[in-house]
Amino acid sequence: MKILCQKAHLLESIQIVQKAVSTKSTIPMIGGIYLSAKEGVLELQSNDYETAIKCSLPVQILTSGTTVLAAKYFSEIVRKLPGDTIEISSSSENTMITLKSGKACYNLVCLPHADFPVVQILESNNTYEIPEKTFKNIIRQTTFACAHEDTRPVFTGVLCEIENTKINMIATNTHRLSFRTAEIINNTNCPLKVIIPSKILNELNKILSSEMETNVSISCHQNKMAFNFRGIYMETQLIEGQFPNYNQVIPKNFKTEIIIETNALSEAVERASLLTRDGDYNVIKMDVDNEKITVTSNNPEVGVGYEEAGAITTGEPITIAFNARYILDVLKIIDTPEILFSFTSPLTPATIKSKEQNEYMYVITPVRTN
Amino acid sequence: MKILCQKAHLLESIQIVQKAVSTKSTIPMIGGIYLSAKEGVLELQSNDYETAIKCSLPVQILTSGTTVLAAKYFSEIVRKLPGDTIEISSSSENTMITLKSGKACYNLVCLPHADFPVVQILESNNTYEIPEKTFKNIIRQTTFACAHEDTRPVFTGVLCEIENTKINMIATNTHRLSFRTAEIINNTNCPLKVIIPSKILNELNKILSSEMETNVSISCHQNKMAFNFRGIYMETQLIEGQFPNYNQVIPKNFKTEIIIETNALSEAVERASLLTRDGDYNVIKMDVDNEKITVTSNNPEVGVGYEEAGAITTGEPITIAFNARYILDVLKIIDTPEILFSFTSPLTPATIKSKEQNEYMYVITPVRTN
Repeated sequence: MKILCQKAHLLESIQIVQKAVSTKSTIPMIGGIYLSAKEGVLELQSNDYETAIKCSLPVQILTSGTTVLAAKYFSEIVRKLPGDTIEISSSSENTMITLKSGKACYNLVCLPHADFPVVQILESNNTYEIPEKTFKNIIRQTTFACAHEDTRPVFTGVLCEIENTKINMIATNTHRLSFRTAEIINNTNCPLKVIIPSKILNELNKILSSEMETNVSISCHQNKMAFNFRGIYMETQLIEGQFPNYNQVIPKNFKTEIIIETNALSEAVERASLLTRDGDYNVIKMDVDNEKITVTSNNPEVGVGYEEAGAITTGEPITIAFNARYILDVLKIIDTPEILFSFTSPLTPATIKSKEQNEYMYVITPVRTN
Repeated sequence: MKILCQKAHLLESIQIVQKAVSTKSTIPMIGGIYLSAKEGVLELQSNDYETAIKCSLPVQILTSGTTVLAAKYFSEIVRKLPGDTIEISSSSENTMITLKSGKACYNLVCLPHADFPVVQILESNNTYEIPEKTFKNIIRQTTFACAHEDTRPVFTGVLCEIENTKINMIATNTHRLSFRTAEIINNTNCPLKVIIPSKILNELNKILSSEMETNVSISCHQNKMAFNFRGIYMETQLIEGQFPNYNQVIPKNFKTEIIIETNALSEAVERASLLTRDGDYNVIKMDVDNEKITVTSNNPEVGVGYEEAGAITTGEPITIAFNARYILDVLKIIDTPEILFSFTSPLTPATIKSKEQNEYMYVITPVRTN
């Protein structure tokens, strides 16, 4: 192999494939990046057996070839090399790769590329198309609500339902639930219902752009799903299991509703929770009454906090307590200046929606206090 | 106590005194900030029994008083409070302090202020005056070279020698030594030779400004030293023990000297050390010959790095190895675009100086390689 490439483009591609490089595995190959240069294109691949990523960039090829390099050293050296162009060449026995840029020259030990689990593009009869920025937003608005520990694997993933022209994505850790719906571009006769691991969605969220007018093409085959956009191919194993019927937990009738500025509520809850956030529950109490909401916190060893914010209130007064973290999480991902917060009783789930949009809903279970 | 103060000024003072608040102690008082309001001034104090800090700010006093608050909650709440002005008032029994700003109201539990180790200003016949920005720079250029572990306490501090109009500060961990000299403002007949803990110097470095035209007044009495500037008073215990005779380790005659761009050497060493920095020694090798320096690194499991930089060389060629960390540390704190790097032999200490200035010198012991 002997190629010339732009440092900035190579680095961008490395950073994308690095998201499926495992830094913890004892198998060196899983910490490697596969490079294959042919026909004017350098293809990079990574594969940690849960997620696989492929990414291509145009390069000037003098001799084609294939190798695998330890991702850690390859990425750090490329990042720091002087000069805008990097020459990558392999030794005659293909045991070392030389990176040259400016007056710097690095020889890196190759891993045996025949052992690399090369990604096979998923064959599927059904692909769904969704605008990249919409998909990024769906992921951002749902994935945070997943469970982190994997005692019940289905809750570490996000349910994805596609039917006709609609995609619904739903995440829950059983204490709160985040629901988002959107339109897909093509009409499909092949409905889909799968659970996508939050890990790949978090990585996708970092790579997807909210400024691109491109689409993401999603395909699914057996227990695998693939995402294709802008020359990037990501593939993941799906989570098997039964996701609970989320419609059952979404409350439909409310006795109290408020409209409040997203930032005003967020700041009040954030300050009030300063007193309680080191505890196990981080509980804040809310009182809704007569065009205002008060947020209070109480930690006997530290003190008492009191916050007040104006709101448009309808229905009965209510006193209800929540885990502050669950309130702050949702207020961060709602993009509208006002929210609609709806309550039934102090011990039944409440909902939060962005005021102007019907695409998003959050269900939160209150905390029982004395 | 009842006072009105500007949030920005209060926060700045809290951040200063917080540097002597211990977050790890089991004694709550050591995690507290002492507040005393009288005669138009709010005085804040902290004291972890190694370092004590006092800091004052003008406030509007309605009722004078004294209290102690847990630093952690006090600082976080003040930082997040809405509004520019904060009202601080104590309950009638002085067991709670109320902070009010905008529509937010926080009651914090007070600690018993009679138990606080109130700082007594050090009485000393000798004070030394030094420009604030010079003192900041001396600290920055020496303290990094201290030892971190305290098996030999003298090496965790910086030797400070004052005589006539001169101050010398010296730090070493026995593998490298950093020396800086400067002028003090007053001429003193009372020479001083003490070891200042690196901990307070690191904190001072954060508080001292390189833009102020003010002076720092330094006084010393028995085993304590105090620093006074812009209404801030910091006091520390000194380290007892015998600092080695550093003049003995400063080499005087050299066989090879190079002048090289500070950044060029820094970048070459930083890249080369990417291959070896996970090891125990992080060794890089330098070859000086014929108007250039080459920097190489070798990690059999990873690869080989080669860097080259132009230099003005005089004397004999030399091959010598160093701990890359020790080279990078000094290149960060040298402010001139070029350095003078002087060698005697592959196994004797070398020196690094800024090219244009004689105030600073670094001595570094090479590493023996096979």
